[in-house]
Amino acid sequence: MLTKLRAELGKDAVLTDADVTGSYSRDMMPLAPSGRPLAVVLPSDVEGVQAVVRACAEAKVPIVPRGAGSGLSGAANAIDGCVVLVMTKLDQIVEIDAGNRLAVVQPGVVNLDFRNAVEKHGLFYPPDPSSYDWCTIGGNLSTNAGGLCCVKYGVTTDSVLGLEVVLADGSLLKTGRRTVKGVAGYDLARLFVGSEGTLGVITQATVALKPLPQAPGTLVAGFDTTEAAGTAVARTVREGLVPSLMEIMDASSIKAAETYLRTDLGAGSDCQALLLCQSDAGGEVARRELAALEQICNDCGATMTYATDDLEEGRMLMQARRVVLTALEQYGVWLTDDVSVPRTRIAELIAGCQRISEEVGLRIAVVGHAGDGNMHPTIVYQPDDEDEFARARRAFDEILDMGLKLGGTVTGEHGVGKIKKEWLEREIGPVGMRVHRQIKQALDPENLFNPGSMFSMT
Amino acid sequence: MLTKLRAELGKDAVLTDADVTGSYSRDMMPLAPSGRPLAVVLPSDVEGVQAVVRACAEAKVPIVPRGAGSGLSGAANAIDGCVVLVMTKLDQIVEIDAGNRLAVVQPGVVNLDFRNAVEKHGLFYPPDPSSYDWCTIGGNLSTNAGGLCCVKYGVTTDSVLGLEVVLADGSLLKTGRRTVKGVAGYDLARLFVGSEGTLGVITQATVALKPLPQAPGTLVAGFDTTEAAGTAVARTVREGLVPSLMEIMDASSIKAAETYLRTDLGAGSDCQALLLCQSDAGGEVARRELAALEQICNDCGATMTYATDDLEEGRMLMQARRVVLTALEQYGVWLTDDVSVPRTRIAELIAGCQRISEEVGLRIAVVGHAGDGNMHPTIVYQPDDEDEFARARRAFDEILDMGLKLGGTVTGEHGVGKIKKEWLEREIGPVGMRVHRQIKQALDPENLFNPGSMFSMT
Repeated sequence: MLTKLRAELGKDAVLTDADVTGSYSRDMMPLAPSGRPLAVVLPSDVEGVQAVVRACAEAKVPIVPRGAGSGLSGAANAIDGCVVLVMTKLDQIVEIDAGNRLAVVQPGVVNLDFRNAVEKHGLFYPPDPSSYDWCTIGGNLSTNAGGLCCVKYGVTTDSVLGLEVVLADGSLLKTGRRTVKGVAGYDLARLFVGSEGTLGVITQATVALKPLPQAPGTLVAGFDTTEAAGTAVARTVREGLVPSLMEIMDASSIKAAETYLRTDLGAGSDCQALLLCQSDAGGEVARRELAALEQICNDCGATMTYATDDLEEGRMLMQARRVVLTALEQYGVWLTDDVSVPRTRIAELIAGCQRISEEVGLRIAVVGHAGDGNMHPTIVYQPDDEDEFARARRAFDEILDMGLKLGGTVTGEHGVGKIKKEWLEREIGPVGMRVHRQIKQALDPENLFNPGSMFSMT
Repeated sequence: MLTKLRAELGKDAVLTDADVTGSYSRDMMPLAPSGRPLAVVLPSDVEGVQAVVRACAEAKVPIVPRGAGSGLSGAANAIDGCVVLVMTKLDQIVEIDAGNRLAVVQPGVVNLDFRNAVEKHGLFYPPDPSSYDWCTIGGNLSTNAGGLCCVKYGVTTDSVLGLEVVLADGSLLKTGRRTVKGVAGYDLARLFVGSEGTLGVITQATVALKPLPQAPGTLVAGFDTTEAAGTAVARTVREGLVPSLMEIMDASSIKAAETYLRTDLGAGSDCQALLLCQSDAGGEVARRELAALEQICNDCGATMTYATDDLEEGRMLMQARRVVLTALEQYGVWLTDDVSVPRTRIAELIAGCQRISEEVGLRIAVVGHAGDGNMHPTIVYQPDDEDEFARARRAFDEILDMGLKLGGTVTGEHGVGKIKKEWLEREIGPVGMRVHRQIKQALDPENLFNPGSMFSMT
């Protein structure tokens, strides 16, 4: 098979050296298992992808598709004897159509490069996962990635109009459309989005773009209880405000950021939660939106609020949020969880994380996209201490359990991958699992696309 | 089987009188075939739906699910020997959760009743098909209905968070979530939305709600060429404006409305196209948005523009758009088509409809959701004249052909049903058809859910 692939793709596109293949065998989730690939293959066009899929089908070799490897669920981790199908060489922005506010893009394009390219046309591609400066569009599509934008602009699937996908037999499915609306047949595009490489390989996407928003104004508010901050979020939702960003940091995150940045965020030593909000509506509207948010925060007992429409100052305020994970590396290795709860339950989730932190004796810092209830409790542990690792894993699972009990989901935006398979089953139940397996069986009868990721067939 | 169903559901829930069943055997699409049902069944809860599906599975009797019957594709038309499963008695609004801006609703609730109920909580359910005062949420979900709101607020699927669906074996699938974000498993909810009753029976939906918009300001602009109106739409898109409504009427629609309303719309006798736009952003922002739209219209050569923030006046201006179909009944029976094209191609579509109108010798009036390129060319014919009927059908098909050639889709919001099956195949091709059949086979192996609608299995 490899000889055949080398003939079809060129020998530089088929790598088997263990040092090299090893570097393509994991994503960023430390808990997930990974195996040794047979080979790493880097096709540079759709025909190359079809050739790989056909060759693997013939030889019954499993395929693990992969982008940049920024994932946090192990979905892109190799399994023993697989071909890792690296999509980064399909890296063309095929078309930007400003008149219809859409673009056609290949999966290997880096999110930031795509954002920058469409921005030159006065357009905006909303999905902005934290790794936006190195993750690829293909990975974003496969995990239905979110980010900070979602409270106002939705997640990746909300931007997808159409897809091209290489199916299990190597044929190319073109699904979806270039128009804003369309109901011709099943919504297959959105079935493939978020399917984590288990149903096919996405080789092209047509995405809707938004008008470029205005430069954001920023509000920061400190609270001496997480309940008060949670109430402010719920009030914001209930009163119909839609900020372009609404993030929360708990006491542990604030402390880590302050220590790392060697600064005082001005929230006071009793501060238990910080809300960071932005409005990108521009001018007077943004000022009014931020003033309304500030009023809500004050009504809910904020001990400090500060609003600015100065861009640089806003960026500095946001930096506290952005550095949290890096800041936690002062204390050990981090393991970030990902639950989404109804927005009225955020404070309960943070309080629960504090309780779990005490139980397992490990630091847990909660940062999250408060505006959509998607929280990332992040556990800090020493990787060489087996007992700490076990306790980190326990905390990780207890947070998921709590997320479900609060009416939420075990993954808001990172995906199931190889780390949350049992949790998927707990969340969706036997009927849901059966439908997943029926669809997988229908589209990938030999179970060669990322087998054992998201769920097992038995 | 019927005896069994009468025992389980009560005898009033199982109807077999031919006069009665006849009244449940068609929707609003005159071209689509329909058959004679074995029975019409009206369960009043999910257990009743499960009982019907199980009984039909055992007896291998096909099931045609149906809401109010406002559809325009024949998807809800009976086939010979089927059970028509009428969902209108599952008519409860189960929950309105203002703190999380969501609601849980049964499929039999009328769209308008649901809108009114959530409005009391200061909330807004966007999807507003023209039949919103009598169509049901279940039909809206099954066809992924649109309406006038879509240019700003998207279509039905964009509001769906979760679904409950009775599957082919009678089991109940609960899929999706109550949270804003969630990526646990495949996006099954959006697979069932728009599947036109071919994969399962939706018995409950959890939908996201929006903040209630402000009272709209309205702008009307007249153009003496459709090209100029089309250019104004494309400029609006390119300049990043997002009106809450942007409708177009061609000369034929304008004339029909003027005659019917016995009024002069003030567009002048040379007027070839009217654009109607609204902004629901409120106050100064809405005034600025409408002023920007007016500027674009003038730049594109509008011969008349008129803007108002008076609600009643706005309603009167909108009335011209709303009465078009009724107004066309002055001339015969109407047959409305439904294509969606890239927004830069609207003028070409309207010009093409004028050409087709001349070719077939029938009046074709084009109204449409210009802001999202979804056009409804409406053909007027005499139903008792066989030749006119044949020419109407020819015009209907030629419009679809043109829609595809302009890079569009054969259905923007009405669906495929029993009237556009061949067109679905033309649009999505053999690979797309194969995937549809694979999914249908996986979820409905006996092909009992609305068989032969949307596509046939062979």
